[in-house]
Amino acid sequence: MISSDVLAYLRTHETRIRNELFDFLRIESVSTRPEKRADVARAAEWLAAALRAAGLETTVQATPGHPIVVGERRRAPGAPTVLVYGHYDVQPAEPLDEWTSPPFSPEIRDGRIYARGACDDKGQLFLHVKVLEALRSTRGELPVNVIVVAEGEEEVGSENLAPFVEKHAERLRADAVVISDSEMFAPGVPAIVSSLRGIAYFEIEARGPARDLHSGSYGGAVANPANALARVLASLQDGHGRVAIEGFNDRVRRWPDEALSAIARLPFDETAFRVETGSPPLDGASTLERLWTLPSCDVHGLLAGFTGEGSKTVIPARARAKVSFRLVADQDPAEIDRLVKAHVAQVAPPGVAVDVTLLHASPAWRADLDSDVFAAAARAVEFAFGRPPVAIGAGYSIPIVGEIERILRAPVLLLGFALPGDNAHAPDEWLSVDCFERGLVAIARLYEEIASAAVVD
Amino acid sequence: MISSDVLAYLRTHETRIRNELFDFLRIESVSTRPEKRADVARAAEWLAAALRAAGLETTVQATPGHPIVVGERRRAPGAPTVLVYGHYDVQPAEPLDEWTSPPFSPEIRDGRIYARGACDDKGQLFLHVKVLEALRSTRGELPVNVIVVAEGEEEVGSENLAPFVEKHAERLRADAVVISDSEMFAPGVPAIVSSLRGIAYFEIEARGPARDLHSGSYGGAVANPANALARVLASLQDGHGRVAIEGFNDRVRRWPDEALSAIARLPFDETAFRVETGSPPLDGASTLERLWTLPSCDVHGLLAGFTGEGSKTVIPARARAKVSFRLVADQDPAEIDRLVKAHVAQVAPPGVAVDVTLLHASPAWRADLDSDVFAAAARAVEFAFGRPPVAIGAGYSIPIVGEIERILRAPVLLLGFALPGDNAHAPDEWLSVDCFERGLVAIARLYEEIASAAVVD
Repeated sequence: MISSDVLAYLRTHETRIRNELFDFLRIESVSTRPEKRADVARAAEWLAAALRAAGLETTVQATPGHPIVVGERRRAPGAPTVLVYGHYDVQPAEPLDEWTSPPFSPEIRDGRIYARGACDDKGQLFLHVKVLEALRSTRGELPVNVIVVAEGEEEVGSENLAPFVEKHAERLRADAVVISDSEMFAPGVPAIVSSLRGIAYFEIEARGPARDLHSGSYGGAVANPANALARVLASLQDGHGRVAIEGFNDRVRRWPDEALSAIARLPFDETAFRVETGSPPLDGASTLERLWTLPSCDVHGLLAGFTGEGSKTVIPARARAKVSFRLVADQDPAEIDRLVKAHVAQVAPPGVAVDVTLLHASPAWRADLDSDVFAAAARAVEFAFGRPPVAIGAGYSIPIVGEIERILRAPVLLLGFALPGDNAHAPDEWLSVDCFERGLVAIARLYEEIASAAVVD
Repeated sequence: MISSDVLAYLRTHETRIRNELFDFLRIESVSTRPEKRADVARAAEWLAAALRAAGLETTVQATPGHPIVVGERRRAPGAPTVLVYGHYDVQPAEPLDEWTSPPFSPEIRDGRIYARGACDDKGQLFLHVKVLEALRSTRGELPVNVIVVAEGEEEVGSENLAPFVEKHAERLRADAVVISDSEMFAPGVPAIVSSLRGIAYFEIEARGPARDLHSGSYGGAVANPANALARVLASLQDGHGRVAIEGFNDRVRRWPDEALSAIARLPFDETAFRVETGSPPLDGASTLERLWTLPSCDVHGLLAGFTGEGSKTVIPARARAKVSFRLVADQDPAEIDRLVKAHVAQVAPPGVAVDVTLLHASPAWRADLDSDVFAAAARAVEFAFGRPPVAIGAGYSIPIVGEIERILRAPVLLLGFALPGDNAHAPDEWLSVDCFERGLVAIARLYEEIASAAVVD
């Protein structure tokens, strides 16, 4: 099992490893911004160089979007093959003025690494690279065969990854897939994520008059697209926040009672959640049930007309919203797309054209917890953290998880080391230094556990 | 009556007059923008200089906001005193990229002067200044006593004008007030505006979580202020666009049948209105009835969360809207303010704080058409345009009209020379060159009509 020289290596090289991570985090690989294209490409090349330095044969593969980095080292004949997936792209950093330190100037404060991408997902992807480097440097060879696949489009829907995996399914064949892009349940409570919500993300645009009009001269005689947009958005939910689109909830599968009981037993700190969010609890289902087992609807952006200081009496020619639905099993994104469009067509007020565009979508996912890789992970995590992981759900979406599982027919292990409140998509994103270091140990041990479990078989 | 030398003067000096107007229009006197404060002050000084050149004793009077320009010439003993009101501030010019020529670089195309402020109201205020100059230059003296009062805050609610007029009521005492800040009914159909809608303009801000959150990790467990804002805005109207706030419509006074019949007889070109706006007709009341006799509700601006290209799964910490209600007699803005706030407090979803701020308000106004000044105006307009004016309503608000009438106890004549479709608050604002020139003649004649009517009395 994990030899003391691997631990010693990681300790000895701690400063260099951190400096390299900071270099990676400095690259502004915001995949949704066309003007950041070169930065995204630079992040791919940086990652490829790091993989090569760790001993992996690595290529940067072009796609119609951002490139996919593939590193391979297959020098463990007879041992299992592990595919590590991660992403090197990040969310936009706006609003910039709400960051304590600039998003692309990593900084450690109070035991946390602050930067855009610190936890989601550059920091956690980098962790795997360094484990591979440490294992090979100290042990001479990796205990398993390894394939690393890292994409640059996770934050914009992973459009090109599934086709890529599909096309190279033979080459990417693996016995298990490991992904570190998730959170622990709480500080000191590591977790394996056993479910993910899906998502259907829409842009809705209401178009009214051919140009902006003065509300004094036209108000009341022309349909106002901003009023109409509000009407459409309000119609998406009932007064209790439940999605009110006909058919939307038909395929929502209630979790088994025992799974709901397990959720209720978790040491969830509701007060801390409310302090952290600054938002009061809602009536009805518990917070974890809401986040993991129920669909939701959130308006992410609104833009129309005059938004500056003061007043302007304009009827805007158009109004736009970004809105998404989180989905649970067995909701089908394609069906949700149809239902949303039919609903909007029905509620759109006369005189206004309302266009609904699906920007990206993916279904929910549930893990098969009976696979060997979960037992190996439990042992590795206990070694590094002093306690086995809990199985938790997740409210967010990693679109590619279900796709990879389907294409490669390999179990996917979601084992991440971020912490709740990590601001993954908000200002002041961070990753705990302690979790990063324990994560290095856990992942190193995981490879050995997988190798030895296979030998025992 | 109007001597040929006045007409000759206006023709002779046509180019200089236009150049001066262009100079005035070049000043970016956007009163709602704090950063344009110096430009607004410059416009006041420019106007004061023009009034002095026309022979008026003129002062620029500081207020807590933008200055008020007052010019006076009282050299017609026994003749009536006419107070001319106008405003030298303009609406913001955004969105700039929708202007054919830059908003503050006046340009003539197809017989129209294009610029921000061309019709609202710099162009029409300037018209009065040039009439005074022409009358005095050619006739030696003005036929009436004249006071010009021009403010720089009309587009932001005229907060400081009423107190100013109140304070100087004795000095500003007049027999009639003339305002050119309105439109003709149609090309070739001059009009006196006999009613104005009022307005109550609000900013509504919904506040949810303490900071932006990731909708995957939090969606469904915290109240989203953008969803809440849409809900609040949608609740303001019923499915037919009628304001649905309890008590809002209680004081709406239906116009007398004969007034509604007069509206129905006007040569209103519904098709042209629909082509111009690019917006289809609404069921129910006619377009002119909607614009002049009924209240309305328009959302002017929406701003929340992520509004760039692509997708970002953020739950925004706050969401903001600008929204106004146009009011008709006898709705009371203070009561409307109370009703709106009570309504929003009632419909705001749990978990979100919704603040409603009244930015400005004014009641509706109806003219007393029996006053002598309307007869004088009818004759003056017929002289300049070849037909008497029609009495029309207006959908917009000139907050100060009712205030001035109340304080000075003088009839207010709203006689303007803009045309429908003038883009007063939108890109490509314009004023017809022909209407400007006929307006000069009409106003020159108006002074003489007022003077001679008084002599006949």
